[in-house]
Amino acid sequence: MSDAATVMQRCDVLAACTEEPGKITRPFASEAMRRANELVREWMLEAGMTVTRDNIGNLRGRYEGAGDATLLLGSHLDSVRDAGRYDGPLGVMAAIAAVQRLHDTGKQLRFAIEVLAFADEEGLRYGSTYLGSRAFSGAFDSAELTRTDPDGISMAEAIRRFGGDPARIAGDRWAGGPLVGYVEVHIEQGPVLEQLGLPVGVVSAIAGQDRYDLTFTGEAGHAGTVPMRLRRDALVAASVFVQRVHDYAASRQGLVATVGRLTVEPGAANVIPGEVTLSLDVRHADDAERKRARAALLDGVKAVAEKRSERAAVACSPRLTPLLAQAIEGEKVELVSGAGHDGVYVSELTEIAMLFVRCKGGISHNPAESVTEADVAVALDVLSRFLELL
Amino acid sequence: MSDAATVMQRCDVLAACTEEPGKITRPFASEAMRRANELVREWMLEAGMTVTRDNIGNLRGRYEGAGDATLLLGSHLDSVRDAGRYDGPLGVMAAIAAVQRLHDTGKQLRFAIEVLAFADEEGLRYGSTYLGSRAFSGAFDSAELTRTDPDGISMAEAIRRFGGDPARIAGDRWAGGPLVGYVEVHIEQGPVLEQLGLPVGVVSAIAGQDRYDLTFTGEAGHAGTVPMRLRRDALVAASVFVQRVHDYAASRQGLVATVGRLTVEPGAANVIPGEVTLSLDVRHADDAERKRARAALLDGVKAVAEKRSERAAVACSPRLTPLLAQAIEGEKVELVSGAGHDGVYVSELTEIAMLFVRCKGGISHNPAESVTEADVAVALDVLSRFLELL
Repeated sequence: MSDAATVMQRCDVLAACTEEPGKITRPFASEAMRRANELVREWMLEAGMTVTRDNIGNLRGRYEGAGDATLLLGSHLDSVRDAGRYDGPLGVMAAIAAVQRLHDTGKQLRFAIEVLAFADEEGLRYGSTYLGSRAFSGAFDSAELTRTDPDGISMAEAIRRFGGDPARIAGDRWAGGPLVGYVEVHIEQGPVLEQLGLPVGVVSAIAGQDRYDLTFTGEAGHAGTVPMRLRRDALVAASVFVQRVHDYAASRQGLVATVGRLTVEPGAANVIPGEVTLSLDVRHADDAERKRARAALLDGVKAVAEKRSERAAVACSPRLTPLLAQAIEGEKVELVSGAGHDGVYVSELTEIAMLFVRCKGGISHNPAESVTEADVAVALDVLSRFLELL
Repeated sequence: MSDAATVMQRCDVLAACTEEPGKITRPFASEAMRRANELVREWMLEAGMTVTRDNIGNLRGRYEGAGDATLLLGSHLDSVRDAGRYDGPLGVMAAIAAVQRLHDTGKQLRFAIEVLAFADEEGLRYGSTYLGSRAFSGAFDSAELTRTDPDGISMAEAIRRFGGDPARIAGDRWAGGPLVGYVEVHIEQGPVLEQLGLPVGVVSAIAGQDRYDLTFTGEAGHAGTVPMRLRRDALVAASVFVQRVHDYAASRQGLVATVGRLTVEPGAANVIPGEVTLSLDVRHADDAERKRARAALLDGVKAVAEKRSERAAVACSPRLTPLLAQAIEGEKVELVSGAGHDGVYVSELTEIAMLFVRCKGGISHNPAESVTEADVAVALDVLSRFLELL
């Protein structure tokens, strides 16, 4: 069996580690995650790694090198509710496969490789994302330990039940010496590679992101009795905004802007909308462009805009990314990651690089998430060549 | 105390007949309605009327005249949930006050007056409107008797508990000889009289109405990873429609069109809208204009449109309406009723006319519903003069 076939098979095996039979739902520190960790630990051992688990629940598999530097490879093992099987696990399985190739040929590189299987990226259980990579990078906030899941179990308690000590998370920050960088293989979660007919692409940056909630206030009234000229219809005003967001983003290179949530009050067929609340999501790889877009979209809008979150863009390494591109045979393409990834936090420790794998229809966070074995084989070859080039 | 003050006070007294303490909620055939009926029956008797109650629960107070013809006056006693105190009761109280004036002066007209206090117009309890006027007009469909309320009580059972015989509703259709017409006093439920600075106005027609549900289907996707040019955002398409509806209606005399309900699927801030469902409500006093508007709005729209209901316009009587206008001292204005009223069904028996009373801010179906005693006094004088002119 080819190692790409092994990766595909292992993603299928991990898909069976779930809290919801018939679906893939693998939250942080769950029984499903415990079973997944046991399997991944075995596969790491098979590939010649020594394996530890830190207090937040990240698995770390280490393959020693000749020097004292370490290259980090990895992704996350948790999932959203009713997820696909590749978002996260593919990156961990690809990293293990890359180490397995070295181990099978008895090769040792100038640097060690540490494969990271992060305990939480999606934030399903506690509504707080990147728990794994934040703990690894020393960016974990212990105030979060009091968060409770829908069953009332605190994060601290969940960590204890999973075998970790919540008081010792801060000590788990990387302390293994000089780092070469962090490289993650991940499905694209978008349609660009498929449109271009390419199996893989390198990521130039993880886009920065703004989230706002906007409230448009009009005046509710009877849909039959208030003449058009006397109306203050909140939905009409909001609709102008929705189009403006779309048209503006479509006219700017690399900008995406989305109104994904919109609710109408009172929301009855015979009542003029009195209030509309909607979400605005703006992303760009260039923070200056994103801030310009945000200002342009919110300027003069007759709505109350409340900032929900802001995340700066993370540029991928100008040292590692060209090597990753060089490792690709055939056409090379640079993509911006519109979605966030563990690299956002690992970038606080070291330079990051990412390799995207084509996925069918750009679909992710969905059982229909799909990659081909042939594309995975390309990704594994790119990763191996990248290690040689490095 | 003036009879306008009496009308105001009686509306207050009826407001206390409610199923929800602190709110006005008076559904069909409820205990609150039984208490309201006892009060209204007393007031009808005081005004010299004989009072009967039909099987659906309409109170009918008859004041005999010299001839065999009958003029119908009235409105409904039921309410929406958390209602105002005037929508419905004002018309019944005004009708009783008009008869009281005749009775107090010992006057008998050439025709009898029958005051109708309809048992249900709003449809709160069974989700089926106009039960009272439909029974009176012979348009009641006995298939509705199997409907159940939220407590599982069938309409037939509710009618029996209220003292009626559901099997005999068809026999309650008006059979009292020739009719002069039906006249209803009602709050405007819109802002036009207030804008014009007028206490009352005559109604030229009850607008016809179309209700549609439209479904816009796009393609859901990740708000960060799908470039603008590859998106099929259902909310952007729906927003174009919302504006088109507003702009078209605003450009047509007498047309009102409203998107009052709009829901987005999946409805998350970071997901491109895949599907939007919205309601379209179109009303005009002229059915041909309404149909033209409907066709123009739905033409070429990339959505699945499903018709929910259609109601033809009802023109007010060309014989009674000018007399009602003549009875107004000062400026006369004709309004279209965008809301439906009991007259819609009574028009199947006889010609109808309506007098609108100015209400504050155009607000109705709300505790803030408000009319002034001075305006009610004007309405009562108009009604009395109208009876003399007739």
